[in-house]
Amino acid sequence: MYSKSVQNINNLSDQILKVLHKVCGKDKLVLHEPQFCGNEWIYTKDCLDSNFVSTVGSYVDRFEEELKSYTGAKHVIAMINGTSALHMALLLIGIKPGDEILLPSLTFVATANAVNYCGAIPHFIDSNEDTLGIDSSALSSWLNQIAEIRGNKCFNKQTGRPIHALIPMHTFGHPCDLDNLKKIAHDYKLIMVEDAAESIGSWYKGCHTGTIGQIGILSFNGNKTITTGGGGAILTNDDKLAKRAKHLSTTAKKPHRWIYEHDEIGFNYRLPNINAALGCAQLEQLPDFLTSKRRLFTRYAEAFDSLKQVRLISEPAGSKSNYWLQTIVLDESVANQQNAVLKITNDYNIMTRPVWTLLHKLKPYHNFPKAPLPIAESLERRIINIPSSVGLA
Amino acid sequence: MYSKSVQNINNLSDQILKVLHKVCGKDKLVLHEPQFCGNEWIYTKDCLDSNFVSTVGSYVDRFEEELKSYTGAKHVIAMINGTSALHMALLLIGIKPGDEILLPSLTFVATANAVNYCGAIPHFIDSNEDTLGIDSSALSSWLNQIAEIRGNKCFNKQTGRPIHALIPMHTFGHPCDLDNLKKIAHDYKLIMVEDAAESIGSWYKGCHTGTIGQIGILSFNGNKTITTGGGGAILTNDDKLAKRAKHLSTTAKKPHRWIYEHDEIGFNYRLPNINAALGCAQLEQLPDFLTSKRRLFTRYAEAFDSLKQVRLISEPAGSKSNYWLQTIVLDESVANQQNAVLKITNDYNIMTRPVWTLLHKLKPYHNFPKAPLPIAESLERRIINIPSSVGLA
Repeated sequence: MYSKSVQNINNLSDQILKVLHKVCGKDKLVLHEPQFCGNEWIYTKDCLDSNFVSTVGSYVDRFEEELKSYTGAKHVIAMINGTSALHMALLLIGIKPGDEILLPSLTFVATANAVNYCGAIPHFIDSNEDTLGIDSSALSSWLNQIAEIRGNKCFNKQTGRPIHALIPMHTFGHPCDLDNLKKIAHDYKLIMVEDAAESIGSWYKGCHTGTIGQIGILSFNGNKTITTGGGGAILTNDDKLAKRAKHLSTTAKKPHRWIYEHDEIGFNYRLPNINAALGCAQLEQLPDFLTSKRRLFTRYAEAFDSLKQVRLISEPAGSKSNYWLQTIVLDESVANQQNAVLKITNDYNIMTRPVWTLLHKLKPYHNFPKAPLPIAESLERRIINIPSSVGLA
Repeated sequence: MYSKSVQNINNLSDQILKVLHKVCGKDKLVLHEPQFCGNEWIYTKDCLDSNFVSTVGSYVDRFEEELKSYTGAKHVIAMINGTSALHMALLLIGIKPGDEILLPSLTFVATANAVNYCGAIPHFIDSNEDTLGIDSSALSSWLNQIAEIRGNKCFNKQTGRPIHALIPMHTFGHPCDLDNLKKIAHDYKLIMVEDAAESIGSWYKGCHTGTIGQIGILSFNGNKTITTGGGGAILTNDDKLAKRAKHLSTTAKKPHRWIYEHDEIGFNYRLPNINAALGCAQLEQLPDFLTSKRRLFTRYAEAFDSLKQVRLISEPAGSKSNYWLQTIVLDESVANQQNAVLKITNDYNIMTRPVWTLLHKLKPYHNFPKAPLPIAESLERRIINIPSSVGLA
């Protein structure tokens, strides 16, 4: 028995490695590396020559304008990273200590950290097998069981705490089921905050991700589809939220030629101009990057077609994904081979990784409220991200 | 009477404007602008070419090494800005919600904001007429009156809360009275956290500011002596604090080739490589920058010598200041002319500004504990910062 099992493991691992070698070649590969083939040098040098490298400068304005134009958001406020953007977004919508916030357990830890920074309580929801985002049916059933509306607010009957917001996250760039989530948010008086950290260039029924909730955020970390080194942005169509975002992220200083007065507890969260210069150059190349990433998906789809125990994640119906991280999901029957696949591919210097450890299992988030999470727990055992950089295809 | 008073005001303002014109010329001047005359472009380009622009990269390591060598700190951990560095420093020393932290009322708002982010309570202390930093005698008298040691901890008898730390800030780059503050911190079981955001290149009795307390921080914001666009650093000689600083500022992710597990609530606070590249180039020029700023001080000193109602702030005895922001202090007798001076100089496009509004007067910090603050309140009426950029002399 033992040797047969080892044989099986080796077989699937070997087959997956073979597919990756076929599509990506045999050179050392990271999961996602940035590409600087545009005006990065020119804009960065121009920024240095202008002497404005910090949080005031023309590239910050330009980056925001170009992001507005690209995403269709009425307002874009550039932030120092995606985490700070999400923290700020939650403060802007009035999250208070003790509020509960619904979010997927299957997301990067920053989603929950931003909630924690507000003193609020993450409340974990199950994910969908196809979109990898919050499952709207599971959310609906769970709220039906645990939530009640009193006055105009939603409360968790089990904890007595208000449930204030819902944070869908577009996993690996794939838009989640926003129409149904929006309806649930409406029914339960929840504010919808879109964590679109991974989904610049992803569209849901013609709208850019991050523009469908009351507020949304993007990330331009070094591993994202486009990068500013570190960076992020808030997207909103709400004039007041946008104005307050700028105020709160620049230490809440009241405008005056020389007086330094701050009327709230503010933050030092604005994107420096030098990072925005990089962002302007990257954004110009985004359409080409997306084409390349889509091409890579097609090549992977062809190559994985023969491996029946492996499903390549494709964009959900009605959505256009940026295919940030290409993802395979093993059948439950071969889930026990996940680690073997990770080991052999990484041993061969083809970087792969599982999805993040589910948040409700992490030490700092172990004792927080959660819905049943069967799909997230199953996906955690089966997801493998594979090399996804622009230029691989 | 009225016209004579106006006459007096105009006279002092005119005289100060004349001095500024004499030293700095008549072109438009900001308070402090960066200078990029070294390897900024070379290093930035090299960073882009390396494809590592984000929080991992050789310039981050190099910047930290060079800061260690320059400051003498055993460990330097580069952060996204001075505010995040101070927030992180306070978390590292174990500041908890409800702790009281002693800090000057005369400081930039970020000092108190970082305390607030920990859920702790700023407790405001008076400043010294000469150093502009915390006055050690006033602090000692105040603690003698309100503090008591129970067990091995200091408590505020008036509020019942623990007093956990003391944050001296080196105002405008001038080292404050660290020997006496260190002694008080020792006597009252307080951890000393140095806010050296303004004082890279400033030395107290041969030690770099920020290295004398248990932990210290620097800022490289765009208006500082050297800049990384946005940036900061933690300085410490404590191995454990340094290790934990890196861990907590990189989302508290445990090292593993592919597993994403986070064992604490972490932050996204590490400096991106592209900003560190700028920092490496700036740091090379720091000695020249300091020489230029010291020369400017000498020129101001000569030019202001004849104005007896105006005192130019000079480095405290035993200290070597970076002279980040050149500062004049009006005599109390002409303090009512501060606004007229600010107005005429700014109207003539010579940027000047008063000190920050004292923190205990700001709306968000209005109701916090405070010692008597007579000197800080007097300084607030009398301080004027004048143009201080490298290259003015």
